[in-house]
Amino acid sequence: MNRQLQELAQIDRLVHEPARLMIMMILNDVGEADFLYLQREGEFTQGNLSSHLSKLEEASYIKIEKKFKGKLPLTVCRLTPKGREAFRSYSRSILSALKGI
Amino acid sequence: MNRQLQELAQIDRLVHEPARLMIMMILNDVGEADFLYLQREGEFTQGNLSSHLSKLEEASYIKIEKKFKGKLPLTVCRLTPKGREAFRSYSRSILSALKGI
Repeated sequence: MNRQLQELAQIDRLVHEPARLMIMMILNDVGEADFLYLQREGEFTQGNLSSHLSKLEEASYIKIEKKFKGKLPLTVCRLTPKGREAFRSYSRSILSALKGI
Repeated sequence: MNRQLQELAQIDRLVHEPARLMIMMILNDVGEADFLYLQREGEFTQGNLSSHLSKLEEASYIKIEKKFKGKLPLTVCRLTPKGREAFRSYSRSILSALKGI
């Protein structure tokens, strides 16, 4: 198996799923974001976003905090250092596998 | 939704699946390949490779031909023009979405 194929065979499938990749890309860009911001930016349904956030939290790729802004509840998400590294490592792998196509 | 997120939201999930991406990458490189070559290069099980080839064939992304080499049966696969375009379009989208990370 050549190196490009190996990169793909070992790709982190938790990050590779398009909706989760979108979430991680947004969080990587903006640092932290609340649920409604993520929902609007990624055009996710509430259930779909919840489900993907749970998977990312289970892997310790994101941290989810419940806060209040005045009386308004806010669900704030950010990448953990582990999640940031997973996202960067994923990006390096896929770019390395596909460059030159 | 910004352009990078749009690229990901509209990504071709048939190509995005890592095993199918590996198959399409091999076929894009070598032109045509028989079943055993693909199995060896991608380190696929027989069932796994068969299943992914069927999905790619159903989408008309690859053409599968049964041939003989002497008395030896050969299953030869190649990308169709539609498949080649899907692969290139996929690569452009993902590179465009992830570059600059």
